[in-house]
Amino acid sequence: MSPKSTSSAAFQGELGAFSHAAAQKLLGRKIRALPCQSFRDVFLALASGKAATAVIPIENTLHGSVHENYDHLLEFGFHVIGETSLRISHQLIAMPGVRFRDVHRVFSHPVALNQCQRFFQKHKRIEAVPFYDTAGSVKMLKDEQPPSAAAIASETASKIYGGIILKRNIEDDPQNFTRFFLLSKQDSSRKNTRGQSKTALVFSVANHPGSLFKVLACFALRDITLTKIESRPLRGKPWEYMFYVDFLGSTEDQRTKNALANLAELAQFFKILGSYRPTP
Amino acid sequence: MSPKSTSSAAFQGELGAFSHAAAQKLLGRKIRALPCQSFRDVFLALASGKAATAVIPIENTLHGSVHENYDHLLEFGFHVIGETSLRISHQLIAMPGVRFRDVHRVFSHPVALNQCQRFFQKHKRIEAVPFYDTAGSVKMLKDEQPPSAAAIASETASKIYGGIILKRNIEDDPQNFTRFFLLSKQDSSRKNTRGQSKTALVFSVANHPGSLFKVLACFALRDITLTKIESRPLRGKPWEYMFYVDFLGSTEDQRTKNALANLAELAQFFKILGSYRPTP
Repeated sequence: MSPKSTSSAAFQGELGAFSHAAAQKLLGRKIRALPCQSFRDVFLALASGKAATAVIPIENTLHGSVHENYDHLLEFGFHVIGETSLRISHQLIAMPGVRFRDVHRVFSHPVALNQCQRFFQKHKRIEAVPFYDTAGSVKMLKDEQPPSAAAIASETASKIYGGIILKRNIEDDPQNFTRFFLLSKQDSSRKNTRGQSKTALVFSVANHPGSLFKVLACFALRDITLTKIESRPLRGKPWEYMFYVDFLGSTEDQRTKNALANLAELAQFFKILGSYRPTP
Repeated sequence: MSPKSTSSAAFQGELGAFSHAAAQKLLGRKIRALPCQSFRDVFLALASGKAATAVIPIENTLHGSVHENYDHLLEFGFHVIGETSLRISHQLIAMPGVRFRDVHRVFSHPVALNQCQRFFQKHKRIEAVPFYDTAGSVKMLKDEQPPSAAAIASETASKIYGGIILKRNIEDDPQNFTRFFLLSKQDSSRKNTRGQSKTALVFSVANHPGSLFKVLACFALRDITLTKIESRPLRGKPWEYMFYVDFLGSTEDQRTKNALANLAELAQFFKILGSYRPTP
């Protein structure tokens, strides 16, 4: 890998997207950012070597797991080498010179607009205008300078496009967090043998009562703490499921090795997505 | 309850939203529809008696569980009395007289636009324009008759607003399903003692290794089949979780009663959301 690409990260959305902020938290502010249109494009950028790493949202406290990204992880076979969580806080952003009392239209992604309902109820003169992307709406303010307009996006987006934050943290629910995975083509689990490692795992079991219970025994018998478990119906196979499990420990720990050997006896399919140390 | 309100259903979105289609599938086409702006408004409509039932999305095959609706279910304490799944298929809809070759702009919710990427790649003359709602974009075509315009929404929305379907099923992924719950203030589990009942349950357990394993033993020891399990971190309580579990059987079955008595010994908190017979 060339030194140039070592610190690059692909993510979905424009510069300043929440995934971009997560990439900076995971890899530092000097990261070379590679914005992509779709999640699939993010994976393709990593596959082709255009980016050395990729940052994807995997779970949100309000909206649940991003199944699409689990699908891409299984298809592409990349390794999870890091994890972090971001609070999704929405800023009301305008270009310099625009005062709050001048604002009559606010552009953003409908999900973000919907997370700021109280703001729009309080300021009835302001119209919420749907846009394709949160950070993209700030970019549009900069490029097109529409009158009386503001956008809702991250503080990172405001900085990147030279915006001014008119109102901070206008989201209804302050407990809105997204968890992100950092991906690489290289496995990093051997580097994570010390400290609070986590491991992410996907498996499926035969469809009969108690089969999940037996799989969980592999972990419970060894006092391994699960931090996530989720079933997901398999496409086109009613009553069959894929399971997502995260647990404390590294694949380099002996007890994890024992648990996984045990799991291999019971599961129809299993794949370790990666062992890593989370970034708080 | 007045006879007038018995067959009414509140749901989020405009008339013709996918939740409206789910309400028709659950309750029949003659249902009195009560469109609401937000999920919270849906619950408030049921609480105030404006609607006799409510229909909410609870899980999507691509986007995961709708945690927000689990939160509202716990807050409002309503009963789940039905369930159905809908395939989310997107139709390209225009007003009568508009031909496909005339279409240069397509309005819809960005999530729907994003699920039809191949359509836009194939037809590069057509611009995707974000709108606040799928069905609402068809309503807008009807009300404002913008030139060269179409919308992406459900077949139900096309029928309601007098649209013409120009292209059918333009979604990239045909395996996009949403599961909906039907809610009522009245518990219906006593009516569901025969046939393939399902029960939805929420619980939390103390945070130590193996506690989930013990809870699952309550079901596994009685050969009760789980159809969903999902952990969700508790807000503001790191390392503590709420679990969502669905299983086959009714709360009226003796073995379910035994399992729940056993669960009551082990769980910190548990709440039965409802027993019901799914609508295929």
